[in-house]
Amino acid sequence: MSNILKKEAFIIPEGVIYLDGNSLGPMPKAVAARVQSMLTDEWGEMLIRGWNFAGWMDQPMRVGAQVARIIGAAEGSVVMGDTLSLKVFQALAAAIKMNPERRVILSDTGNFPSDLYMAEGLVGLMEQGYELRTVAPEEVVDAVDDSIAVVMLTQVDYRTGRTHDMNAITELAHRHGAVMLWDLAHSAGAIEVDLEGSNCEFAIGCTYKYLNGGPGAPAFIYVRPDLADTIKPALSGWLGHRQPFAFDLNYKAGAGIERMRVGTPPVIQLTALEVAMDLWADVDMAELRRQSVALQEQFITEIERDVPQLTLASPRDSAVRGSQVSLQFHEGFAAMQAIIERGVIGDFRAPDIMRFGFTPMYLDAADISAAVKIIADVMNNNLWDQDKYKVRSKVT
Amino acid sequence: MSNILKKEAFIIPEGVIYLDGNSLGPMPKAVAARVQSMLTDEWGEMLIRGWNFAGWMDQPMRVGAQVARIIGAAEGSVVMGDTLSLKVFQALAAAIKMNPERRVILSDTGNFPSDLYMAEGLVGLMEQGYELRTVAPEEVVDAVDDSIAVVMLTQVDYRTGRTHDMNAITELAHRHGAVMLWDLAHSAGAIEVDLEGSNCEFAIGCTYKYLNGGPGAPAFIYVRPDLADTIKPALSGWLGHRQPFAFDLNYKAGAGIERMRVGTPPVIQLTALEVAMDLWADVDMAELRRQSVALQEQFITEIERDVPQLTLASPRDSAVRGSQVSLQFHEGFAAMQAIIERGVIGDFRAPDIMRFGFTPMYLDAADISAAVKIIADVMNNNLWDQDKYKVRSKVT
Repeated sequence: MSNILKKEAFIIPEGVIYLDGNSLGPMPKAVAARVQSMLTDEWGEMLIRGWNFAGWMDQPMRVGAQVARIIGAAEGSVVMGDTLSLKVFQALAAAIKMNPERRVILSDTGNFPSDLYMAEGLVGLMEQGYELRTVAPEEVVDAVDDSIAVVMLTQVDYRTGRTHDMNAITELAHRHGAVMLWDLAHSAGAIEVDLEGSNCEFAIGCTYKYLNGGPGAPAFIYVRPDLADTIKPALSGWLGHRQPFAFDLNYKAGAGIERMRVGTPPVIQLTALEVAMDLWADVDMAELRRQSVALQEQFITEIERDVPQLTLASPRDSAVRGSQVSLQFHEGFAAMQAIIERGVIGDFRAPDIMRFGFTPMYLDAADISAAVKIIADVMNNNLWDQDKYKVRSKVT
Repeated sequence: MSNILKKEAFIIPEGVIYLDGNSLGPMPKAVAARVQSMLTDEWGEMLIRGWNFAGWMDQPMRVGAQVARIIGAAEGSVVMGDTLSLKVFQALAAAIKMNPERRVILSDTGNFPSDLYMAEGLVGLMEQGYELRTVAPEEVVDAVDDSIAVVMLTQVDYRTGRTHDMNAITELAHRHGAVMLWDLAHSAGAIEVDLEGSNCEFAIGCTYKYLNGGPGAPAFIYVRPDLADTIKPALSGWLGHRQPFAFDLNYKAGAGIERMRVGTPPVIQLTALEVAMDLWADVDMAELRRQSVALQEQFITEIERDVPQLTLASPRDSAVRGSQVSLQFHEGFAAMQAIIERGVIGDFRAPDIMRFGFTPMYLDAADISAAVKIIADVMNNNLWDQDKYKVRSKVT
């Protein structure tokens, strides 16, 4: 029995159809009460003792286990903390030291810019001829050769939703002696992921999108279990130390994935995330994926029937598309503003992409039809063509 | 008119005298309602639009301005984010590149271990002969020479409360061409700090201690305003980019201190911190310091009179002591457990330090006398000498 649609578990404001869960998921209803009790009963009453009595210290591993299940990772191979940008740096710094004779990080122009920026920062810091090499997404396969130290890719393109073949590219990287790092920002909670099966060394991702952890929810990092005890953390913070409270003057990396912890964990954010992740405990990811594809197919069909002036910018083949549909329109910013004002919330990515995310946990077929009706009304009646919508289109 | 004591603004559980605000400050009463409204009215109702409508995007700078006032920093020179360990890395990575001919980071054994660990991680990542050199706190002055790239010190020693002379050491570092980085973990909200006057290049600190921001509250970083536009961020995340939403493929550092932002900010934690910082808006730090010293002097006098078996481990001269008093006792762990069980909450740091923090915002002279009475009762009647208190003393 599939238990995917849980609309009643979320706050969805009256009159809103939310197609932006790929950017920031809506709030699970249980979050407010749980955070309140963490604040009042834990921080308020236990004070410093909350670190032990309320289990704050173990939370990054506990929530990591919740995330691990969703991405096909073994228990104890995922830990939470910091932000996705920092996890890029952390994973990349460990990965590059595994290939000390090589100097090239390979990525693609479809990667989220912050991943590229963090790699640029790492390379600039290390000097010694390290290099970030970026090719078009379709050229990645040809660019993997024996000079590559690390292949770093985001599985689902944030603009178009196009997916990379995780197993094939990982295998290719390994054949050339490169380490594989996957960013699952738009994968976790969106599509089926089999991290263990892929055999990649590292994976990272965020939890405020499809996992509904709230604005600024902590990121996750996965290290393949057979490597976790050998990698050298560059961000060697005290909570990744074998005995944080020994206050040793020298760093000794903790056991396994625990060494990827850095500083004091953000307990309030983790508490919101932990209760949001409870909603995933009984979710069959294969069934969620089936429902996500069905909603997307319905959306594309209805858009192409009713609003032909919007051009599909995502792959038509759902097998190589994540959980979003992107449409191209020359005045996409203005159009999206007008659509949002009428209750259908998607978002815009420069220069001309209108993005819509599909999340079967709180969207059903009726929502999709209702959304298309509003989009068609805005587009077919040129409701977007007013100064109030267009004024900001140059400043995004 | 001094407005320091604001006991009624905090949750202090019945029967508790809280002398551990140097580890985790208590919860300001306003936090629960403010976080609740952020969750329900902002995340819940605005969804993705909260980034603009609720001002989430500007929060790291807005809260940075609140912190700047407390540490004598110019407006616009402080930004919030991540954890203190990460801010150590970020500041150190920028600092070391300012002295490209030099290879040594100088610190001391009184520094918080995580600061040393992060420096170790940075040095291990960069290779090329970089080195972390650590001397005893009293030897720092003699160890500063023309080979030092960066001097990195924590102003207030976390174990003993001993302070370094910020102005003198900064001047010494500069005389030798070294860059100065101060960790203000036990300074911000505890003592008067005049960052601008010190002329140091970098400062960092946390906000969950004296500033009462909650468990895992974000850290802060200060860069001297004349340098902020020239330093090169190693943790070059998208929110430190000049135009994060241009989704440029290349990193271009943002204006001034904004370049020290990294990833998506932790909005829930920042909201708790922001309302906690409101309590500091009318605080005169000189007056707070006077009251802190008075409470500490009272505590030392009463302890030495009533509990002579405890040895003062902090400097006796309040001019070189932060806002804590540390006492040495061979069975300090067991003793602290027994004291905590009777409502006086301090903490223990291996091997034999009992720490007590002094926070005039929610402690007055009557609290200190009541605390000493309980400590004396435990110590003079050997109430700590029971298996239930001693059992864990080896595992801290």
